[in-house]
Amino acid sequence: MKNFIEFLEGRVQGTGSLLCIGLDPHLADLESPTAESALKFCLGIVKETADYASAFKPNAAFFEIFGAEGWDALKELIATINALSIPLILDAKRGDIASTAEAYAKSAFEHLHADAITLNPYLGKDSIDPFIENPEKGAFLLCKTSNPGSDDLQNLQVSPLLDGEGAGVRALYEHVAKLAQSWNTNNNIGLVVGATQPEALAKVRAAAPDLWFLAPGVGAQGGDLATALKAGLREDGKGMLISVSRSVARAEMPRKASRELMNEILKVKKEIGL
Amino acid sequence: MKNFIEFLEGRVQGTGSLLCIGLDPHLADLESPTAESALKFCLGIVKETADYASAFKPNAAFFEIFGAEGWDALKELIATINALSIPLILDAKRGDIASTAEAYAKSAFEHLHADAITLNPYLGKDSIDPFIENPEKGAFLLCKTSNPGSDDLQNLQVSPLLDGEGAGVRALYEHVAKLAQSWNTNNNIGLVVGATQPEALAKVRAAAPDLWFLAPGVGAQGGDLATALKAGLREDGKGMLISVSRSVARAEMPRKASRELMNEILKVKKEIGL
Repeated sequence: MKNFIEFLEGRVQGTGSLLCIGLDPHLADLESPTAESALKFCLGIVKETADYASAFKPNAAFFEIFGAEGWDALKELIATINALSIPLILDAKRGDIASTAEAYAKSAFEHLHADAITLNPYLGKDSIDPFIENPEKGAFLLCKTSNPGSDDLQNLQVSPLLDGEGAGVRALYEHVAKLAQSWNTNNNIGLVVGATQPEALAKVRAAAPDLWFLAPGVGAQGGDLATALKAGLREDGKGMLISVSRSVARAEMPRKASRELMNEILKVKKEIGL
Repeated sequence: MKNFIEFLEGRVQGTGSLLCIGLDPHLADLESPTAESALKFCLGIVKETADYASAFKPNAAFFEIFGAEGWDALKELIATINALSIPLILDAKRGDIASTAEAYAKSAFEHLHADAITLNPYLGKDSIDPFIENPEKGAFLLCKTSNPGSDDLQNLQVSPLLDGEGAGVRALYEHVAKLAQSWNTNNNIGLVVGATQPEALAKVRAAAPDLWFLAPGVGAQGGDLATALKAGLREDGKGMLISVSRSVARAEMPRKASRELMNEILKVKKEIGL
């Protein structure tokens, strides 16, 4: 097996796409409020969009809501995507102390067979370690999220004593980006950075020049694609997965919607010469 | 139904105990690596310790590791504890943006029937709201955890512009405590504060004079009970659940171990006149 980021970059190379398709079976979108219906909904999106998806990202919450049956549905969904050799990021936002984090890592990687997971960094390095020990598996750490409440903690100015700089030199989310960049010794860490705040995106890119970003917020949440790409792409024109869920899932033709988004991304990349 | 904190305080009044028994079915402690065995292990602890427990706290990770069967086992465990009318805190450390947080809240409270849940505050207020809308349900926010990596973010000095104070006046975890205190309009928010760092406990108590703390770290993680209680108890001698897992679960006689711990807590409370 390959290193996770190499696996992702191979897929991006093959498709030419930077799209990550979110699989969020909101109850409102389902034929009936059942795990079976959630699975059917997601499999439909996978079938329609697989040609243009460089990754899929199911959100655990919408499966947990159905209990054991939801868990089975999630497992089946992941198996289907695994069989297509498309990187699978489990959006679970876990975060716990070491021995518990080990159990979550086992659950995500060995039981569910996800390729990567989203994690919350509030508990620090040892809560991340069990997820990044194996370079074949990846972790995207929450850095700057796209919700209104993200300002409550993430925008606080922090005084990072670790490198001798003065007080208040950076926001907490920039500090997280710097930590993630320094923790990335296995080349399998990425960051979750909302596409709705281009200034923040640019700061995170400056703090973590090498890392892949998972960037939700284009479309339903109002983020502008071109602005986001200009702020967040790496110098090699990669390093950013544009994560879309509702704008594709609720489109009349998800296949067409995802192809158009992919083409829009390619157009912007051409415009900015990347 | 009662407000969550009133439910908890009623139980504390009835037992005279400040113990929260953690239910963490580590694989190493099980007869066999199965969900059935994890459930049996936890039910054994519940039976032994129920007389001295003011709350039980199963950790979701150790059930998720078994997939759908683990989920069923967790649900059955919670139903057993619900039937005993003992407050049930689901240790899940979730945290996601609003519409997803709603799904997690539904999963924890409506599907699993937990009375409260542990949450990660990194995404801010709107990620907490769906869990605290119903005053019958509670949420304990991660504040200062007991693991080594907790320093990476939680100890950073922050400049909270919100109240006009100067730069670097408090640690991030103190800021979280102040936020939680201000968000507690439904009287159903608590904080997770490790018992291993009494100085931090005292600072959190100063920042959040009213809130209940869930304090792990006594025993296996080396925290001293008396020091922790002195630093963290409220002026009414309540406000702190001492959360123990391995030191009770791995004791030769869990019933005896939990009774002794309860008595030790009562002794310390008497000594400090609370």
